[in-house]
Amino acid sequence: MAIIVQKFGGTSIADAAKIRRAAERVIRTVKDGYQVVVVASARGKQTDQLVSDALELNPNPPKREMDQLLSTGEQQTVSLIAMALDAMGHDAISFTGRQIRMLTDSVHTNARIKSIEAERIHKQLDKDKIVIVAGFQGVDESDNITTLGRGGSDTTAVALAAALGAEECEIYTDVDGIHTTDPRMFKNAAKIKEISYDEMLELSSLGAGVIHTRAVGFGKKYDVKLHIRSSSEDKEGTIITHEVPQMEGVVVSGATVQEDMAKIGLVGVDNIPGNAAKIFACLAKAKVVVNDIVQTEVSAKKANLSFMIGLSDLAAAKKAAEGIKDEVNCERIFVREDIAEISVVGVGMRTHYGVADKMFSALAEAKVNIDSITTSEIRISCIVDKDQAKKALEALCVVFGLDKPADQRGSIS
Amino acid sequence: MAIIVQKFGGTSIADAAKIRRAAERVIRTVKDGYQVVVVASARGKQTDQLVSDALELNPNPPKREMDQLLSTGEQQTVSLIAMALDAMGHDAISFTGRQIRMLTDSVHTNARIKSIEAERIHKQLDKDKIVIVAGFQGVDESDNITTLGRGGSDTTAVALAAALGAEECEIYTDVDGIHTTDPRMFKNAAKIKEISYDEMLELSSLGAGVIHTRAVGFGKKYDVKLHIRSSSEDKEGTIITHEVPQMEGVVVSGATVQEDMAKIGLVGVDNIPGNAAKIFACLAKAKVVVNDIVQTEVSAKKANLSFMIGLSDLAAAKKAAEGIKDEVNCERIFVREDIAEISVVGVGMRTHYGVADKMFSALAEAKVNIDSITTSEIRISCIVDKDQAKKALEALCVVFGLDKPADQRGSIS
Repeated sequence: MAIIVQKFGGTSIADAAKIRRAAERVIRTVKDGYQVVVVASARGKQTDQLVSDALELNPNPPKREMDQLLSTGEQQTVSLIAMALDAMGHDAISFTGRQIRMLTDSVHTNARIKSIEAERIHKQLDKDKIVIVAGFQGVDESDNITTLGRGGSDTTAVALAAALGAEECEIYTDVDGIHTTDPRMFKNAAKIKEISYDEMLELSSLGAGVIHTRAVGFGKKYDVKLHIRSSSEDKEGTIITHEVPQMEGVVVSGATVQEDMAKIGLVGVDNIPGNAAKIFACLAKAKVVVNDIVQTEVSAKKANLSFMIGLSDLAAAKKAAEGIKDEVNCERIFVREDIAEISVVGVGMRTHYGVADKMFSALAEAKVNIDSITTSEIRISCIVDKDQAKKALEALCVVFGLDKPADQRGSIS
Repeated sequence: MAIIVQKFGGTSIADAAKIRRAAERVIRTVKDGYQVVVVASARGKQTDQLVSDALELNPNPPKREMDQLLSTGEQQTVSLIAMALDAMGHDAISFTGRQIRMLTDSVHTNARIKSIEAERIHKQLDKDKIVIVAGFQGVDESDNITTLGRGGSDTTAVALAAALGAEECEIYTDVDGIHTTDPRMFKNAAKIKEISYDEMLELSSLGAGVIHTRAVGFGKKYDVKLHIRSSSEDKEGTIITHEVPQMEGVVVSGATVQEDMAKIGLVGVDNIPGNAAKIFACLAKAKVVVNDIVQTEVSAKKANLSFMIGLSDLAAAKKAAEGIKDEVNCERIFVREDIAEISVVGVGMRTHYGVADKMFSALAEAKVNIDSITTSEIRISCIVDKDQAKKALEALCVVFGLDKPADQRGSIS
């Protein structure tokens, strides 16, 4: 009998009515002839409440205790879902991370999964029970409770689907799937029917928040078909799967804007070996995550160096840069906060020419000034002024046909 | 280094301020040179909230899932207490029932403790950590979470104190100790300094709600000194310990009133072997707990039979009695709800005469009519009219000197 893993996020099970609706969804899948494993997050604002309870007592709570505390949110949800299913006449059993031996390392609040004991779950499924597993949590070798960090329940669901050999891992959420771009920025954004792991990884790390990068990475590694769909409407969402030939026909699958970032530049750094290493060691020590590093030579002796950071890291990054300034003989440091990063993503770029050209032309036509450009194999990103970001995105959506389903777009010239 | 177990009930840790106050109490004990193990219940109304969340989804939730749900309350508290202690500069570590292998049977919502792995706790104490253990919960052999039922956290604390060889088990609560009777019924009730397990067992089962019978029974079995004390004031409470010779000098240690009960009588039952058995088998089948059975012969062929039940069981008990009425050829069934049971308890009764006489005289003088009388080795109970209960209790408190500490009472004539 084929297995389906269904993951419900916090907003999809926020109250009794929503828990019942989720339970009905599960029962429909059981009636379709599947064994179902449900993965659940904490209800709505439960986690926020627990975090605030903790901070009231300790502004810097020990991470082990934080995990002990936060893991209760999912434990509550899974037992409540099991009760709802029981009330609807279906046998169900809930498990904590510990109870299915979701073994992780000991990095509290951001642990990595090492192994899962699928046997206990199979045994219950084979007794015709619906199994409900608490997302986000595990235990380390010493039986301390750990949590998986942001997007942890997605990761639990995908890891379980891999361990159980599930046919599909469905991620139920409050949107009806992945769109070509954020519908709040471009209202005609089309829903994507199918997308590759690599494209989704780029989109997720560029801020498309529906599913966490780590869960997509897991899906790719273990070839788990992911299905992002709406918890309120019963219709197909977006399938994330391995790359299939027809995907290459789609040049650009999606576009993103990231506005919560800043650019830092070090102008006139001595162009000698080791200076770049010194600068980035300094930033790493300050725990600043750095993206899109660009270095350009301005003379035989001097170079300019710039990089992007998240806005929340700005203070730390500035301090780190100021600290290293004299050592690398830097003339001047500049900071730009009024910027945004516009990206287009598509596996078709691997085989199609002219995507960059088409992108830059469209931006030029829309009179958007490009500050800088970075690319990966399946992505092109431009830094633009923040107040031109929306206009820029719209221009790209139109030129790459992102208001239409992939099969109705014209091919690139 | 001596160990003290300190148990804090839900009202003593209901909010951040109270959790901090409990943490301060723990730290004072550490500074006095003890290793401290804290046992905590769920915060204030948390458990009620979870029960209501469950019932909203399922009027009859599966007990395993109920345990999975309710055990989160204590898990939250222990991590929060650990965080509070950390903020105050003290190393602390919290444990769930599972994490200290509090092994129980599999009777969900009312499990019995089988064993505890004290080693993990000793190891942490020897690292100078304060150990916080979730009360009320354990795990069965199959790693299902179980709970211990009413008064479960008290039981956890006493069981831990026994397993760890603790010097004392302190039960912090919102009253300052055990009183000779309920101060709401007799305002001059004196605080008891020291009381034996047997007396406390009688008082607890007669409704003195400060500590659960089961925990006292555990204390007696493993000779754990219990100390019931106030979580808001730093003063001595009541010590519950094994019987010592001077306790016998105190004839009556306490008095109780139980008002939530009813009496059922079967009049004119055929006086043949097996009829009483039939009646009580019928009540047992209806899950009615029966107390104070009295049977009297009214003729060679007929007997009257009466017994006490909790008010909440009244409907079930009446139905059971009506069901068996014809079979035992009973002439009439009567029910009295307007009654109360007044009891006096004291180990001194074992060696002193005249307690019953003194009790009945005092009630007669107060013009209280006695419906019936039952006794144990250290207890005398009378059923009286409910509206005379307070007057009856006051008369007994005065005649047995329960408004004075034990050492200031005159001895019985």
